[in-house]
Amino acid sequence: MITLAALQMKSVPGDVAANLARVEQAAKDAAGRGASLLMTPELGLTGYGAGDVIRDLADSADGALVRRLQVISAQSGIAIIAGFAEQAEGTVFNSAVYVDGDAAPVVYRKSNLYGDYERDLFTPAAPGTVTFDHRGVRCGMLICYDVEFPENVRRLALAGVDAVLVPTALPAGYSGTFIANHMIQTRAFENQVFVAYINHCGADERFTFAGSSRIAAPDGSLLANAASHGETLMVVTIKPADFKVSKAENTYLTDLSIPA
Amino acid sequence: MITLAALQMKSVPGDVAANLARVEQAAKDAAGRGASLLMTPELGLTGYGAGDVIRDLADSADGALVRRLQVISAQSGIAIIAGFAEQAEGTVFNSAVYVDGDAAPVVYRKSNLYGDYERDLFTPAAPGTVTFDHRGVRCGMLICYDVEFPENVRRLALAGVDAVLVPTALPAGYSGTFIANHMIQTRAFENQVFVAYINHCGADERFTFAGSSRIAAPDGSLLANAASHGETLMVVTIKPADFKVSKAENTYLTDLSIPA
Repeated sequence: MITLAALQMKSVPGDVAANLARVEQAAKDAAGRGASLLMTPELGLTGYGAGDVIRDLADSADGALVRRLQVISAQSGIAIIAGFAEQAEGTVFNSAVYVDGDAAPVVYRKSNLYGDYERDLFTPAAPGTVTFDHRGVRCGMLICYDVEFPENVRRLALAGVDAVLVPTALPAGYSGTFIANHMIQTRAFENQVFVAYINHCGADERFTFAGSSRIAAPDGSLLANAASHGETLMVVTIKPADFKVSKAENTYLTDLSIPA
Repeated sequence: MITLAALQMKSVPGDVAANLARVEQAAKDAAGRGASLLMTPELGLTGYGAGDVIRDLADSADGALVRRLQVISAQSGIAIIAGFAEQAEGTVFNSAVYVDGDAAPVVYRKSNLYGDYERDLFTPAAPGTVTFDHRGVRCGMLICYDVEFPENVRRLALAGVDAVLVPTALPAGYSGTFIANHMIQTRAFENQVFVAYINHCGADERFTFAGSSRIAAPDGSLLANAASHGETLMVVTIKPADFKVSKAENTYLTDLSIPA
């Protein structure tokens, strides 16, 4: 069992120092509310819609940015998941990092880039199964559009995760509303895992975000349900043992038949 | 473009003649309302919860039962999808058949059997990609639990279908409500296909059904939405061209990346 905090956040485009300060404040608040892990949105440290400057702000996973996150984590006593532009392999990935004090950071790189905006800025990673153990809860990461593909969540579920943690930058509009209101819960239910889908709110110069962050339980119910507008820090309990009945009734992972 | 009719039906357990008569009446009504295809629920011709007698009522795809459906189809001028117990390969499958007058019937066999009740009665088929053209609309079939696996719908979508037609027997309860209210629309949206999910209503000696039949459009919206109780004949227009904007915005099938 863990207590998970998630910050639906309005990033300042291109201002990493301001965004780090916001994350630091949320880390302190979340730790004060008993959480051991804080999630923040996709590219929350650079801003999602900041454009080409995002590439200039890219840093390696062992660079100053992640090091700073580790210090915040150590000082506030809470692990953090943050989205950043990752410089690696001679290119830039849209990545999320899990830091837990001085422990080695865990990095996930987005494989399903959405639209020309992202494809111009980033290189897509091969689909990856990045998992880690957080205080006894097995976690996997995806980023935004990745979670809209059932294949990606299934891959993590078959790898044995309890929870899929998804920083996102979901734009407002018809499709965004559908995804927030139906798809996230379905991903949880069809795999009997927790899905935390944490979005930006407000607008930058390129995008207006849907807010509507969601934390769904294995039975498809919502543990948290942010409004479409406004920053909010949500704190929930992630307790896999509470959903044994649902998992016993909905045996998708064991009933799955793969075509020969 | 086609006009699709779907009968949320209360089958009479074990009484094939009564169920055929009900389908015949619905076929006439649907044809009178301009439909070219009538869908009915899983095992609608035998009743879903009739128990062991279902095996006694099993017939081959070229037997008297399907032949009778073809006659009804020819006489009423409408194609029909009906669920029946299929005798084949020395065993019994939980199958659905598409008949269109005297044309060769198209049979789909359920691959994901649900629970001990079905596993005691039927042999599961290997996952199959059964598609057919109905008046210019490319259709595929699944049965009930099959559609809860995103892999099965994806397989049909990648085979190029416009619509996935799903006779079902969804029990009432928490999971049934979730599936009807979130999952069916998600299957449609994540593949940008129509999904028609047609259930029983009422109860037999073993099961109480959820009703709540759904016909979802490629953008995840509902074209039809049956109540949880009561028989109803729903008639909708299936027009793939109406969803070009949604398909252009939600390019899941072309953006899908398969792990190497």
